[in-house]
Amino acid sequence: MSLATLSNPQFRLAARPFGLVKPSDWAYSTEPVREITDGEILVKVLYLSLDPAMRGWMNEGKSYIRPVAIGEVMRAGGIGEVIASKSPKFAVGDTISGSLGVQTYWVGAADDKTAGFYKVDGHAAPLPKYLNALGMPGMTAYFGLLEVGQPKAGETVVVSGAAGAVGQTVGQVAKHKGCRVVGIAGGKEKCDFVVNELGFDACIDYKTGSVKEGLKQHCPNGVDVYFDNVGGEILDTVLTRINMKARIVICGAISQYNNTTPVKGPANYLSLLVNRARMEGIVVFDYADRYHKGVAEMAGWMREGTFKTREDIVQGLEKFPQALQMLFDGGNFGKLVLQVA
Amino acid sequence: MSLATLSNPQFRLAARPFGLVKPSDWAYSTEPVREITDGEILVKVLYLSLDPAMRGWMNEGKSYIRPVAIGEVMRAGGIGEVIASKSPKFAVGDTISGSLGVQTYWVGAADDKTAGFYKVDGHAAPLPKYLNALGMPGMTAYFGLLEVGQPKAGETVVVSGAAGAVGQTVGQVAKHKGCRVVGIAGGKEKCDFVVNELGFDACIDYKTGSVKEGLKQHCPNGVDVYFDNVGGEILDTVLTRINMKARIVICGAISQYNNTTPVKGPANYLSLLVNRARMEGIVVFDYADRYHKGVAEMAGWMREGTFKTREDIVQGLEKFPQALQMLFDGGNFGKLVLQVA
Repeated sequence: MSLATLSNPQFRLAARPFGLVKPSDWAYSTEPVREITDGEILVKVLYLSLDPAMRGWMNEGKSYIRPVAIGEVMRAGGIGEVIASKSPKFAVGDTISGSLGVQTYWVGAADDKTAGFYKVDGHAAPLPKYLNALGMPGMTAYFGLLEVGQPKAGETVVVSGAAGAVGQTVGQVAKHKGCRVVGIAGGKEKCDFVVNELGFDACIDYKTGSVKEGLKQHCPNGVDVYFDNVGGEILDTVLTRINMKARIVICGAISQYNNTTPVKGPANYLSLLVNRARMEGIVVFDYADRYHKGVAEMAGWMREGTFKTREDIVQGLEKFPQALQMLFDGGNFGKLVLQVA
Repeated sequence: MSLATLSNPQFRLAARPFGLVKPSDWAYSTEPVREITDGEILVKVLYLSLDPAMRGWMNEGKSYIRPVAIGEVMRAGGIGEVIASKSPKFAVGDTISGSLGVQTYWVGAADDKTAGFYKVDGHAAPLPKYLNALGMPGMTAYFGLLEVGQPKAGETVVVSGAAGAVGQTVGQVAKHKGCRVVGIAGGKEKCDFVVNELGFDACIDYKTGSVKEGLKQHCPNGVDVYFDNVGGEILDTVLTRINMKARIVICGAISQYNNTTPVKGPANYLSLLVNRARMEGIVVFDYADRYHKGVAEMAGWMREGTFKTREDIVQGLEKFPQALQMLFDGGNFGKLVLQVA
């Protein structure tokens, strides 16, 4: 195979968005794929993970990871197949996970630290699962809930974005640990899914009802752990219902990521004082040396049939801008994945 | 002594304040002191502790302690002398600390749980110290810093309200534990005091300079522990300078207590996520069974001369409304105490 015959459609960041991402913030182009040299691999991108965190990577300023530069291929985790290799690390035919970017092919050093490639087993589970419960969202949920949230059997765990990639796993891990689990999600379909399919005890539809009334009804013993993916009004409302010594896991704030005004801080934060409660952030990379533990436990539950995940798969690299936007208007149902090849 | 000859000037809560407390929110009256019965004591109030938390007790709504009722004598901790006793628990002449209220005499059961009386030794330390470092503010500072803030030697601790009752002790305990200590206070006199008298490494005058620039200058290695007494803009600014795994102790929010608009939540709270940091509330009562440990350690430092406190003593019960207001306009310098007798 001559690689020179391959072309690489890709999305680069053209401008830093202000508020909602506009089509003009992206530059879509096609480049030829270069030959690989010693130590390098060529990866055909199969699936890309679309995550709320991507919106943050588009902003300037210090964060837990450097911003994507203007003109750079947009960062995205994904699953790909090694189609050429001059590295002993991976062989042609290997399926690998890592930071592949919003493009059709990835070329570079097999041991590139930023890419962080590792092999996945497509026979053990369908590949998109490795971008969901067995990937970053799953690890975020697993370690964020267990290490930061520290739920005890019998306690009440509330999770927002309940039908999303992180929320699905938070709720099911909490159920496996003996907790009462109440989700918050947008729409009857998502709420029915997390209750009927995933086994949550209840789910509050923030689009049609009062979150405050829902919490009163479904958390009669208050809230011990709140896993927050959304921020904004929902965080503020949950703060009014927390128990003594409650733990609030700050995982994200999807309601605030497209703000053109300053982030809305939690006005009810003094509930932390009244209740001697804690609010703490989680970044998944801190637990990298223990991912295998989370994968093993959740894969075991999957084999038993007591742990399910749902992916929402959009076809075609060219759909990337519209697909990403689904995350922010609640349009996706389950972990959002872009199928590239 | 016939108690019937004693009269009891007192302040009762007349109305729930909206924003700043108005003179008409208080009812000042004088009642006769009733005779004591079996198990009761009569206490002459010597000193009352004036604390920011009192503003919260005047509001309706669930908190860590029930609100003061309309028509009730205003709650206040204090030091008094037992001048009549029909209880074996305390003898005439004993000096005791507890919730005496804003009045001249207290009558009731010696073992009243709400009052929570215990003996103090006026020979071991001047009585106002028992309302400062050896009382509730000191215990709040000691346990809030050590148990919630968990400072390690060499770390940087920042404390707001640095010259206040809690702040003085936070900074000095942190110095004793080997930390770099930076205060935030209003005015040169207070800043000079905490640096020159109490041994803080630096103090930022929020009235004349930029807190952000001050933090950059005086916390070159970032902020590991922030002990927050003020909330508002200062909390938001410190959030931009915290280190990985920082601990923010939420002790109070004096900047927000007189709000007529909703509390300003910390807009920069997502710094908790980026930095895997924690924000946690402290209420002193949780540590009641270990107060003796805090008192013993700080009293030891006082005897060595390595721990100082400053009280700002206002004379006369009738000054109570104006004295309380000093807390909110920064008018007091040191722990604010009202001398009643």
